Amino acid sequence: MASTPRWRAALTKALNLPENKYQNVYQLATVDANDDPRSRTVVHRDILSPEGYQNLPILLTTTDVRTPKVSQIRGHPRVEITWWMGGSQDQWRIYGPVRLVPSPDVKIDSRSASQPSLALDRMDEQGFDWEKKRLDVFDGMSAHMKASWCRPPPGSTIKSYDEAKKWPQTVPKLGEAETDEDKRNQEQALRNFALVLVEAVEVDWVQLAEKPNQRTRFTRNGEEWKEEIIVP
Amino acid sequence: MASTPRWRAALTKALNLPENKYQNVYQLATVDANDDPRSRTVVHRDILSPEGYQNLPILLTTTDVRTPKVSQIRGHPRVEITWWMGGSQDQWRIYGPVRLVPSPDVKIDSRSASQPSLALDRMDEQGFDWEKKRLDVFDGMSAHMKASWCRPPPGSTIKSYDEAKKWPQTVPKLGEAETDEDKRNQEQALRNFALVLVEAVEVDWVQLAEKPNQRTRFTRNGEEWKEEIIVP
Repeated sequence: MASTPRWRAALTKALNLPENKYQNVYQLATVDANDDPRSRTVVHRDILSPEGYQNLPILLTTTDVRTPKVSQIRGHPRVEITWWMGGSQDQWRIYGPVRLVPSPDVKIDSRSASQPSLALDRMDEQGFDWEKKRLDVFDGMSAHMKASWCRPPPGSTIKSYDEAKKWPQTVPKLGEAETDEDKRNQEQALRNFALVLVEAVEVDWVQLAEKPNQRTRFTRNGEEWKEEIIVP
Repeated sequence: MASTPRWRAALTKALNLPENKYQNVYQLATVDANDDPRSRTVVHRDILSPEGYQNLPILLTTTDVRTPKVSQIRGHPRVEITWWMGGSQDQWRIYGPVRLVPSPDVKIDSRSASQPSLALDRMDEQGFDWEKKRLDVFDGMSAHMKASWCRPPPGSTIKSYDEAKKWPQTVPKLGEAETDEDKRNQEQALRNFALVLVEAVEVDWVQLAEKPNQRTRFTRNGEEWKEEIIVP
């Protein structure tokens, strides 16, 4: 049983501090078709790892398959997460390959085939059920959040803010759709909903609450994490 | 006199809300030499615009010229800022060309010459004194913050966190250095300190406190801002 890297234990501890209560969001940076950087705030959902390999963490967030970040990830499947926890004054930068897990009904290239992807590949080998995970994460969202995947394509133009009032406001849990409308909405939401999996291979942790400030770089070489103290 | 774009007025208003008190930081996304996205948290310092052109805002943050983001900006002078204000649940994504203003003693290519750069070029034409601004922003920082530019190169490895205790802890204001050591430190800090100027040409504003959520895309065409309501 491989051990948890120090940064993962520290990140989990920081995330559970009361002063970091609302800091479960981070910025996900991608590269677009013009090679320009793009970045947006997303909600952190989970940290996974292959069974028996706590040393190979994967951060899980979610998206709508129709957003620009999905085509950006397909075009360039490496990303950086920047997680600023203002309560405890910690910054975590997490860099690595990324994979999408869309609906089985949606044909997008969901594997970063050309990327070295140790943790994700190992979960595949272990027969991890990605579709079950996708459904579980979807079902864990609020009814209001579930409805956000029933909107027209994110970023498309509309005539007025009032148009949003016509869109579905809630979508029930799986197995609880009663009306035809609820069933249709649930299907549409599930078709648009995708997991985004970021495999950590480089982590840069800055601790600004420490005086003098501390900064540590963790680099995964094979399955081992190397830890270096660096200048903040 | 051109008028302030609506997003700029709304951003300034949001930033002044008591619930956004500690939210004067954002993530600056760049592209590195491998075309990978990189992103880190920086502190917002100011919004500038050419005299008489409130419609051409430039966001100002700062850096150490020895950091990787400086070579990344030189290699690819377009960036995106992601500014999440958790208090009011607003996200601002601000995309555009970027320019560095280093010390006159440091020879780096500080102009994004190939970039369309209306606001920055106009400030040049108006004879704006960038070096004076650089000194003013430096002098407005705390003595502790000023000392952060006297450290060894950011990101370089050190043997232990204790090494940081040997570095200068404070640097006095300009004109107030008395000892030789203070003078040396001030010189070194000023040599490493640079402005980072991001000219806004695309702004994406999401308002999650509004129900239903609202999202607006602002695009600068020439000197005019086009505003579109888009799907969140």
